[in-house]
Amino acid sequence: MNPFEFSVQHESDTARAGRFATPHGVVDTPAFMAVGTLATVKSLDPIDLREMGAQMILGNAYHLHLRPGDELIRDFGGLHRFMGWDGPILTDSGGFQVFSLEGLRTVSEDGVEFRSHIDGSKHVFTPESVMQIERNLGADVIMQFDHVIPGQSDEATARDASERSVRWLARCLAELERLQAGGPPPKNTITNFPALPGTTFPLPAPSHPQALFPIVQGGIHDALRIDAARRIRELGDWPGFGIGGLSVGEAKPDMYRILEVVDGELPRDRPRYLMGVGFPEDLVEAVRRGVDLFDCVAPTRMGRNGAAFTSDGRLNIKRAEFRTDPRPLDEACDCSACRRFSRAYVRHLFTSDEILGLRLLSLHNVHFLVRLMRDARDAIRAGTLDAWSRDWLTRYHIRPVPTA
Amino acid sequence: MNPFEFSVQHESDTARAGRFATPHGVVDTPAFMAVGTLATVKSLDPIDLREMGAQMILGNAYHLHLRPGDELIRDFGGLHRFMGWDGPILTDSGGFQVFSLEGLRTVSEDGVEFRSHIDGSKHVFTPESVMQIERNLGADVIMQFDHVIPGQSDEATARDASERSVRWLARCLAELERLQAGGPPPKNTITNFPALPGTTFPLPAPSHPQALFPIVQGGIHDALRIDAARRIRELGDWPGFGIGGLSVGEAKPDMYRILEVVDGELPRDRPRYLMGVGFPEDLVEAVRRGVDLFDCVAPTRMGRNGAAFTSDGRLNIKRAEFRTDPRPLDEACDCSACRRFSRAYVRHLFTSDEILGLRLLSLHNVHFLVRLMRDARDAIRAGTLDAWSRDWLTRYHIRPVPTA
Repeated sequence: MNPFEFSVQHESDTARAGRFATPHGVVDTPAFMAVGTLATVKSLDPIDLREMGAQMILGNAYHLHLRPGDELIRDFGGLHRFMGWDGPILTDSGGFQVFSLEGLRTVSEDGVEFRSHIDGSKHVFTPESVMQIERNLGADVIMQFDHVIPGQSDEATARDASERSVRWLARCLAELERLQAGGPPPKNTITNFPALPGTTFPLPAPSHPQALFPIVQGGIHDALRIDAARRIRELGDWPGFGIGGLSVGEAKPDMYRILEVVDGELPRDRPRYLMGVGFPEDLVEAVRRGVDLFDCVAPTRMGRNGAAFTSDGRLNIKRAEFRTDPRPLDEACDCSACRRFSRAYVRHLFTSDEILGLRLLSLHNVHFLVRLMRDARDAIRAGTLDAWSRDWLTRYHIRPVPTA
Repeated sequence: MNPFEFSVQHESDTARAGRFATPHGVVDTPAFMAVGTLATVKSLDPIDLREMGAQMILGNAYHLHLRPGDELIRDFGGLHRFMGWDGPILTDSGGFQVFSLEGLRTVSEDGVEFRSHIDGSKHVFTPESVMQIERNLGADVIMQFDHVIPGQSDEATARDASERSVRWLARCLAELERLQAGGPPPKNTITNFPALPGTTFPLPAPSHPQALFPIVQGGIHDALRIDAARRIRELGDWPGFGIGGLSVGEAKPDMYRILEVVDGELPRDRPRYLMGVGFPEDLVEAVRRGVDLFDCVAPTRMGRNGAAFTSDGRLNIKRAEFRTDPRPLDEACDCSACRRFSRAYVRHLFTSDEILGLRLLSLHNVHFLVRLMRDARDAIRAGTLDAWSRDWLTRYHIRPVPTA
C-alpha cells in the first residue's frame, strides 16, 4: 500500500479534486496549507487549525535547524509531537530562505555556505544535510533542496539553477534512501527527566515514511520549465511535484502561463504543489490550471497588518470607515471570528495593538483560504469549476485570466 | 429578588466560600477576575476564558472611554456584546489610571482634569461623568470613582483622599440613581448598516441593573481604614465593597494587617473585592482574611514576559535550563497548554518571539489563578482552608504570614 497514494476523484477541465494520503491522514485537494515556519502557525493554536478544517500545514527546515534545532525536535519525537499537530505536515527545505540571504552566502556545486540571520554563525546546507534535517523533523512530505534564483533572472541563470536543482534532487534521493536504510537513529540525549504523562522518554525519533517532492524551476521560460519537468521525471516516479520560482515578482499572466505549461508536463495522477502561493485570486486561477496544494504566509502576515480577505475583495480593518461597522469581517464567512465579532471590535483591537486582533484576523484569513479550497472542491465535483471561479473572481474584483 | 444577592455558604476561620449573583450569571467565590482592560484579556479569546472556568472579568472605564469610546460601546449594545463575553463583568472607574498620570492631571473637589496618555487631549472625570461612562459600558458591577494616592502617602494625605472618596461615593450614587430613573438612552447613531445575523440595529443600550461598589481607602493606616469603612456604610447598604490602595509598594505584613482590619469592619454578607491583587501567594493570604474577589494583570503581563506560575513557585520559561525540558509548565496543571506542550516548546516560542508563546503562558497563568481559587473554595467547604493554605504556601516557597 502506497502511503502517499494520490487519486483524482473528479475533474472539471484541467482542475481536479483529489485525495492525497499521508502517514498522518488524508488530504482532500485542492487544499491550502497554513505556514508554520517555526513550529507554529503565527498566533494560532493547532486547535484553531483543526476547528477551521485545516488539513495540512508547513514547516521550514532552515528556520527549525537554527531554532530550536532539528536534533532537539527529533529527540522530542519529531515536529508533529513537538508542536502538537498530529495531521499531515510538509517541510520546505529552506532553499528559498538560504538563497534570500544575499551577501551572507556562497553557492557552489556542493551546496550553500551561509551565515545565520539570527546570530551570524556559519552553516552549510547540502542536499545531503538538508535531507538529514528533514528526516529529523519527520514531516510527511519533504521538499528537495534546490537552487533558488531571483524572479527576474535571465534564461542563462535560470537554466544553470534549474539544472543544478535536478542534480541536487538526485543527491537528495540518494541520501534519503541511505538514511531510510540506515540503522537506528542516534541515542536520544533527553533521558534525565520524569516522563510526561502518557509518554516515555527517550521518545523514538520519527520513523514513518516520508515523500520527497522535487521542485520544478525554470523561471518564466517555458522551454526551461518543460526541460526541468522532463529531467525530473527521468530520475524517478515521484510521489508529487513542487512548482517553485513563481509569485516572486513576475507578471500574473506569466505565472498563469507557466502553470499551464507545467500542468501539461507533469503526470496527472500526482499532486502538484505551487509553492508560496498565495492570495485568494492566485489560488483560484491555479486550481483552474491543475494545482492541488498551496502554501503562503499572506493570510497570517497580512492579517497581522490588518488585511482581511473577504468575498468582496480585501479590506484593511484599520481604516476609519470600519470604526462603527457592526458587520463581521466577511458576511459570507462562518469562521470563529465572523460568527462573534464586529469589524468595529476587530478594528478597536488593532488600533489598541491588542494581540487578539492579530489572532482573529489570522484565523479568519487562514479559514478563508481553507474554505475557498473547500468550495473549489465542491465546484469541481459538480463540474462547475469554470463558472464558479469566474463568478468568484468577479465578486472579488479581479478580472479572470482566460486559460489557454 | 436582589439581582446581586451574595450568600456565604461555608466558612473556615475568616475565609468564606460564597455565591454572588449578577445579571450575567452567578460567581462562586473566592474568584479571580482576569483583566480585560481594553475589552480583551490580552492575547486571550473569551472562549479560552470560558474553557478554563473563568467566571468574571474586568474592564476599565478610563481606557475604554478613550478607546474605542464608551458611547460607541453603548451603541453596540454594551461591553458584553462588543467583546463577546456574556458572563459577569466588573468595570473599574479608572481612578487608578487617572491618578497615575502624574504631571498630566489636576485634582479638585469637583473631579480630575487630565490629558489622555494616547494623544494628549484634555478630559475631565467627575463622579458623575464616570457613572455615565460605566452605565454606557453596562458592566454588572461598577466601581465608584475614587481619589487614589501613592502607596507611601502620609496619614494626612491619605485622610484627605479617603474623605474625598467618600464624598465622591455619594455623588456617584446620586448620579447612578438619576441615570437609572432617567428616560431612554440617547438615540443610537449606528443605523445605516445591514443587521448582523440574529441582531437588529440599532441595538438597545444596556439596561440591566448595575451594582455600585464603594472603595475603602486609607493607605496602611488602620484608623483611616476603619473610619472609611464606617463612613461608607453610613451612606448605604452597598451590594459589595472594593478594598483599594493595597499592593502599591507597601510591605506584605502591612497589606495583610490592613485586610484583617477591614475584614472586621465590613459586613460579612457582602462580597469584598481586593483591587489589583495579585500574585498567587497574595490571593491565598487574602482569602484567609475574608476576601472574595480579586483582579490583577500579573498573569497576563508577566506571562507575556515569560513568567509562569507553578505549584512549586514561579519560573521564567526563557531560561536555558528549560531548553530540553519535556515537562509541562506545571505538572499539576490541567490547562490547555499543560496538557499538550512541553516547556521546551513554549521556551522555543518565546525565544522566537512567537505570539503563541504569549497566548499559552497567559492562558496557563490565568487558569492557574482561576484554579487556585477553585481549590480554595473546596478547602473552605471542607473546613481545611488554614491547613490547605499553609501547605500551598510552603510548596510555593513562601513563608505563611500568621493571621492576627
